[in-house]
Amino acid sequence: MDTEFIEQLVIKNDKKIIFLIMDGLGGLPQEGGTKTELETAATPNLDRLAAGGVCGLFDPVGYGITPGSGPAHFALFGYDPIKYNVGRGLLSAAGLGFPMKPGDLFMRANFATLDKSGLISDRRAGRLATEKNEALCKKLQDSIKLETAKEVFFCTEKEHRALVVLRGGNFSEQISETDPQKTGKPIIASQGLVPEADTTAAAVRELSEKVIKALSAEEQANCLLLRGFAQYKVFPSMTDRFGLRPLAIATYPMYKGIAQLVGMTVVEGLSTVEDEIVALKANYDKYDYFYIHIKATDSRGEDGNFAEKVKVIEKVDSLIPEIRALNPDVLVVTGDHSTPALMSGHSWHSLPALLSAKTCRPDGALNFGESSCLNGGLGRMPMKYLMGVALAHAGKLEKYGA
Amino acid sequence: MDTEFIEQLVIKNDKKIIFLIMDGLGGLPQEGGTKTELETAATPNLDRLAAGGVCGLFDPVGYGITPGSGPAHFALFGYDPIKYNVGRGLLSAAGLGFPMKPGDLFMRANFATLDKSGLISDRRAGRLATEKNEALCKKLQDSIKLETAKEVFFCTEKEHRALVVLRGGNFSEQISETDPQKTGKPIIASQGLVPEADTTAAAVRELSEKVIKALSAEEQANCLLLRGFAQYKVFPSMTDRFGLRPLAIATYPMYKGIAQLVGMTVVEGLSTVEDEIVALKANYDKYDYFYIHIKATDSRGEDGNFAEKVKVIEKVDSLIPEIRALNPDVLVVTGDHSTPALMSGHSWHSLPALLSAKTCRPDGALNFGESSCLNGGLGRMPMKYLMGVALAHAGKLEKYGA
Repeated sequence: MDTEFIEQLVIKNDKKIIFLIMDGLGGLPQEGGTKTELETAATPNLDRLAAGGVCGLFDPVGYGITPGSGPAHFALFGYDPIKYNVGRGLLSAAGLGFPMKPGDLFMRANFATLDKSGLISDRRAGRLATEKNEALCKKLQDSIKLETAKEVFFCTEKEHRALVVLRGGNFSEQISETDPQKTGKPIIASQGLVPEADTTAAAVRELSEKVIKALSAEEQANCLLLRGFAQYKVFPSMTDRFGLRPLAIATYPMYKGIAQLVGMTVVEGLSTVEDEIVALKANYDKYDYFYIHIKATDSRGEDGNFAEKVKVIEKVDSLIPEIRALNPDVLVVTGDHSTPALMSGHSWHSLPALLSAKTCRPDGALNFGESSCLNGGLGRMPMKYLMGVALAHAGKLEKYGA
Repeated sequence: MDTEFIEQLVIKNDKKIIFLIMDGLGGLPQEGGTKTELETAATPNLDRLAAGGVCGLFDPVGYGITPGSGPAHFALFGYDPIKYNVGRGLLSAAGLGFPMKPGDLFMRANFATLDKSGLISDRRAGRLATEKNEALCKKLQDSIKLETAKEVFFCTEKEHRALVVLRGGNFSEQISETDPQKTGKPIIASQGLVPEADTTAAAVRELSEKVIKALSAEEQANCLLLRGFAQYKVFPSMTDRFGLRPLAIATYPMYKGIAQLVGMTVVEGLSTVEDEIVALKANYDKYDYFYIHIKATDSRGEDGNFAEKVKVIEKVDSLIPEIRALNPDVLVVTGDHSTPALMSGHSWHSLPALLSAKTCRPDGALNFGESSCLNGGLGRMPMKYLMGVALAHAGKLEKYGA
């Protein structure tokens, strides 16, 4: 069954679905321990939801696959993460709210340091300050004109990271990266990976050379490494596919960007988890699908900080009564992927998930944790099918066949 | 692995397989309860089978998909339910034993009531008596000639339901229904959904108009609503695919029809579960695959009657010793889909199943119920693969590869 199959069965109704997503929720015990971050956290509210609902373990992309945030979220929203994979450039552009146009080519750029012999000595240019990045992007924007593209845009992301966009040319994303991925190596001249991409590779070479010229007076940030090439792409929206009126409640640009790609309305100006709950309540009547994104679980996991990740989970648990008070028809609590503090990064481990609704069959998961989800009635499932199960519990899918 | 994969491995032998199917078996607890219908029922015989056999939870079509009886049964018989989906008209025709021919177009018809302003006031014409339906079908058969089809057949099903067949024309099933699905609306003029179907839509419009004319003297049943369009289709038989000599033991026309579509011999003239057991014994030597269909579990679920569904399950349990006395090599007990009394209809919930054979590995399912099947050795499986597992336990599949 492909993820498009359910589209023919969609019925619109007023039932409300909330997806509460703790980024990087799945974990591992610390060395010598026996409990994950979620199992260590005191989560009386989540435990109650798990006991009354149905639980399971979900694979974002596939067995053994460690997903980036893009594929993990696409799966969560019911989009096949292999079919809908996109280059990092497009996620950056969406996240920054860049006004995308058909034909645009997006790329992720790192300010980096070239030494006198033309080798990369620092791939992050000393993690330069965001303000410096902004000044350099302005300088590049004012000085660079390309012969191979009508327009070029330089947009600061954060620290050493930027977005570069080429517009006005017949571009392809099938080109090689300029980032050698190691220090002590020169910048790589981009090449077309298919014959039709040769002119795009030439544009990226021209861009790379002109950036080095324009930044020649800089000591640290004197070049850009270019990767994550992605063409403009239109995704079928969650409204068209599932009949939903979806709202994204997130604090970080990238997650707002991913939500925009699948057609969600995005609440702007949120900074804290408390802000997010306020936004949920304020918009509850106007939408019927709510994606609430909690970033800190992933950040503390990436930091390798087990104890702080536990605290974030406990904080989220304390907000559950406010969400339950809204009486949603379906409440799903899970993550997008695992980020065990033990590994200080994303991992391939399956994700614990709970679904609470009136039509849940009792199962063996009496609290919310990776081990108890092993006894959950959802079993082990590909993440891309979770949306269909949520729609079913909300009465939003009609019967298939006579 | 597609469902055709096992065909290359089939070995014929005399081992016997019984599928005892309680329609709509899967359930949910009533509000405030903790046990499903199956878990509430006293089923000492099924529990013994489960303890000695292997159990699991099965998805008829896919995660979150609520199946109709057609797709659910095709999956049970080892046919991919998405590939082999058919319109309700074909299931009706097979169920009535209509002598189908290549090129035929089948449709489900409801006698309905049109008011004086040309709007549907009752989609079931007061659930008219079957005898009245028969009289009206005869009247239509005698009076209607179409310019757009060489022949047309009107066959009574039951109450307000009938089968209509068009023959002699280049027909397509890609046309829209005439049933507005709501009262207070006019009959919809059928349209082709693809250009090649325009002539079929014109035939259905001619049919619809002539039926209204022919029934103009009737107060209640004065039109037909037409839907479930299906062209004649030949299915590869269970004999050709799996080397089986299959027998269907069922009381309801539709299930006999589905069984005929996959090439089963059908026992006629059965009314009760007791009749079915008698038929099983009488035919046991002549066949090696037996599909026994119990309708009442689904009917009581559709009625929303938890207690009566429990009683039906207990009744079936009491018949198990008679089936075991035949000493089948493989006995499977499951349903085709879930019909929780709580929902008064089919649902997407996975189905409990048990398989009893000499080659079962012990598992954690010590009685027969949805929760205990969570600990079953079959895990959670797509229903379409159950047939392969049954064939394997019956020694009917050889080794794949060297």
